[in-house]
Order: sequence, then C-alpha cells, then structure tokens
Amino acid sequence: MAHHVFPVRVYYEDTDHSGVVYHANYLKYFERAREHLLGPDELVRLLEEDGVGFVVVKASLRYRDGARFGDVIEIRSTAKQGSPYRAVFVQEAWRPGGTKPAVEAEIELCTVNRDGRLVKLPDGVVARVQALLAGA
Amino acid sequence: MAHHVFPVRVYYEDTDHSGVVYHANYLKYFERAREHLLGPDELVRLLEEDGVGFVVVKASLRYRDGARFGDVIEIRSTAKQGSPYRAVFVQEAWRPGGTKPAVEAEIELCTVNRDGRLVKLPDGVVARVQALLAGA
Amino acid sequence: MAHHVFPVRVYYEDTDHSGVVYHANYLKYFERAREHLLGPDELVRLLEEDGVGFVVVKASLRYRDGARFGDVIEIRSTAKQGSPYRAVFVQEAWRPGGTKPAVEAEIELCTVNRDGRLVKLPDGVVARVQALLAGA
Amino acid sequence: MAHHVFPVRVYYEDTDHSGVVYHANYLKYFERAREHLLGPDELVRLLEEDGVGFVVVKASLRYRDGARFGDVIEIRSTAKQGSPYRAVFVQEAWRPGGTKPAVEAEIELCTVNRDGRLVKLPDGVVARVQALLAGA
Repeated sequence: MAHHVFPVRVYYEDTDHSGVVYHANYLKYFERAREHLLGPDELVRLLEEDGVGFVVVKASLRYRDGARFGDVIEIRSTAKQGSPYRAVFVQEAWRPGGTKPAVEAEIELCTVNRDGRLVKLPDGVVARVQALLAGA
Repeated sequence: MAHHVFPVRVYYEDTDHSGVVYHANYLKYFERAREHLLGPDELVRLLEEDGVGFVVVKASLRYRDGARFGDVIEIRSTAKQGSPYRAVFVQEAWRPGGTKPAVEAEIELCTVNRDGRLVKLPDGVVARVQALLAGA
Repeated sequence: MAHHVFPVRVYYEDTDHSGVVYHANYLKYFERAREHLLGPDELVRLLEEDGVGFVVVKASLRYRDGARFGDVIEIRSTAKQGSPYRAVFVQEAWRPGGTKPAVEAEIELCTVNRDGRLVKLPDGVVARVQALLAGA
Repeated sequence: MAHHVFPVRVYYEDTDHSGVVYHANYLKYFERAREHLLGPDELVRLLEEDGVGFVVVKASLRYRDGARFGDVIEIRSTAKQGSPYRAVFVQEAWRPGGTKPAVEAEIELCTVNRDGRLVKLPDGVVARVQALLAGA
C-alpha cells in the first residue's frame, strides 16, 4: 500500500540516558508526520477559522529497536480505516538501513470543536484518509 | 485490586495549545509512577551497579478526557501479568473528582544489560509485580 | 535571604544520551518551582477568572554541573526585584550533597491578558515577590 | 554578518495552553540549528569515535514574541567569539514575516570527553566558528 514518508532527525533532546530515543517521543514523531500528511496550513486554517482541532483517542505502540542520536528515521504513515468521526493511522518508524520497523503504531483520532465536542471529520481529512486507503 | 497511587501536577510545560495535556506526556507520567512503584533508588543502583535498565516494548493507551493546567492527576498502577522477562503494568490517570479514568494504559517492559541485550527481570522487580498481582 | 525550596526528581524523560539532564529542562524545573511559590490554585484562578497568564521575557542560565537520573534536585528560588509589570526571580538547582548550585538562573516574567497584552502584575504576585525580597 | 539559517516548524508538541511555543523549547530549536551548522554526521562521529560531546555552559534568552502552531520559524545562527575551549553562538528565532527576532539568544558551549572532562574544541568546530566570525 502507498504510504506517506516523513523524515525525522534524532537530536540530543530526543534521547534519554539509556542512549536511545525516549519512548514517548515516537508519539511526537508520528504526530508531526500526520500533520504533514494532512497539510499543516490546512490544519492551522481549520483551527483558526473553523475552531476544529484534533484529539488522539487511542494509541498503541510496539517498540522493536531504539533509534539513536544522529539517526534520520523515516516515518511511514498510512490509514487503516476511516469513519465520519474517526481516522485510524498506521505509522512506522524506520531506522536507517533497517529491515523492519523500529516502532510500529496505530493511532486513532477524532476532531473536536472549540467547546471540546466531537464533530465530524472535516472533508479534507476524510479525503486524505480515503486516498491513503486507496493506495494513492 | 490494590494499586499504587502517584500524584502528578499539570504544569504549563505539559499542556499544548488545545488547552489540555499533550497526549504523549501521559507516557511520561506513567513512567514516573512506575519508577516510584519500583523504588527510584533501587533503579539507580540497578543501572549503576548491575548495568540493568528498562525498555518499554509495548504501550497501548485509551484517552477519554484531557487533564488541564493545575490539575493534580492521580496515577493508579497495578500489574496485569509477569514473566521472567516481562512486566505488564495497567495504569490509569484520574482527574480530580473524575468518575472514570481520563486515560487508561497497558505498558509492557523488559530489562536490558549495558549491551542492550534482554536479561531476566531483577528479583526486586519480580517481587514488586507479584505483590501487585496479589493485591498487596 | 530566605528562599522557596522545591524538590524535583530526575526521571528517564529528563536526561539525554550524554547521561545528564538535558539543558532546556532546567527551565521547566524553574517554572514548576515558581508555580508552587506563587500558588498553583491561584494561578489557575487568575487564568480562568481573570484571563491573566504569565510570559517569560528574559532568562539567563549558567550551568556548572549536570544532574543525573535518580537525583532529587532542590530548586531554591527567591526574587531579585519587582516592578508593577515585571517580576525577576533568582533560581538555583542544587544536586544532592552539592557545595554550589549545579545551575543558576535569573528569570524575568510579565503577565498578559487574554489578548496577549501586558497587564500589571496581580496583587498576589507582587505580594509574594515583596515577601521574598524581604526575606520572608 | 553571514549566518546559518535553519527552519523549524511549530507542532502541537511545541506549544502550551497559552497558545504559543513553551519558552524552554527555543533552547531545543537553537540546539537543532547548531547541530546542523556543525554537521550532524560529524557530531555523531565525534561522539562515537572520539568520545567527545557538547555541554551548554551558559545561555541567555530574550523573548519578544511567541511563535504559534503552524509557524515555520527561521533560526539564524552566527558566532560571537571562540576560544580553544569555548564557542559562543548568537542565535535568533524569526517568525514568518517578522520585522525583528521573536527570540534572541546567546549560547556558550564547551566539549567534554567520556569522563565529562573539559577538552579543547575539535578542529572542525573551531573552523566552523572561525568561518562564521569571518562572515563566510
């Protein structure tokens, strides 16, 4: 299936004293990738004009290997399913030269309005998820 | 079942521009709670004397509500199962006055030596997990 | 001079691959200490009822030693000067058993309203700064 | 004077509930920029082969404006002075369309060996600082 690719460099800030990337930081990388996948300018517009923002409702991660300082890891993202209210992304972090993903994740998101109430996913988000599902 | 309780205050640093705690930060809170549950001084000793550290191998989270600036959330932790090589913790974040957990998680950990190789869980860790499983 | 004391434990999340606390994180510790010094509940009230929040306008830090995983560092805070619009805090991070501060900082803050405009420091903040200046 | 330019996009993770970038995060941005300025691959080599890493010894920051979600800020870096043991960088964060820097900083660094002892700056670092001082 087609996937969106987004590179992330590992800096001092990302690692912990064990020498590898701190486990929570992959959630940040996956979010950065999703923002690029969906279009950062459109996300700003949605938030400022329509008052619509994203919330993560579920996340599951499996860690196989630890990325290290200086690595440029590749975040590969695609969609698993979509509904009018939920988008489910399948995301992987690959170390340079890796033969399998260092981290695999499934992240489920909803959108909320300024009062924090659930709203239907904006059309642009649904379209992007459909395109990923179709392998575009 | 008995559980370990650890309070966490939400500071500016924890929130994002949506007004609630950034989703990745709950993984930090859950780790802080596990460190206290296992004994921070023993964890330092394990690392410095035995060269044994922890790695998260799986994490799954379900987000129901967002903690806000100033909240003192309560992290409730217990164990789900243990093996010689893995400890599985069930952890929840409760907002003040909440009737159900704001965030629920299951976190699976292993221990590794200085070369990053899997080693059996130290006895103290196994004992602590057994005590949680027994409801102590 | 009297100072406010606030303990901070160093977790995995705080360190980087060099083995010590990542330099930016001391700014987080100093802010946590200031929030406790000023009263976290009052800060929440100020924000929610009066729409008043804090912004850091200047910060200078001198790093002498690096705190390590498991350290409980002590944040010692006092005020250097105050004005109707600015509060200047002098803050230090001490490692356990240290003979001088590991990190020294001077942090200057203002308060802003919901539109981001500068407003006079709330009376409670001024009173707290005066008390620190007076050595109370 | 010539300066090194490095773009940084502001994500959810970077902001706090006040709506702008959390003040400590600019130290992260400045470090990312310095790593690119000095060459990330060379920094990895220095660390792994020569056991040489960087420590920040001083940092002073002046905050004038707050970057917001979605901004692509520009980090402009140059050197102020150098010595065999210290490199001093002058770094600024510019918001899109800004007429003055949102944040200005001066950051002083040393290099240490595996035992944490101060060592002379590696030749490549000195050369890069000289080039910045010369306006190259």
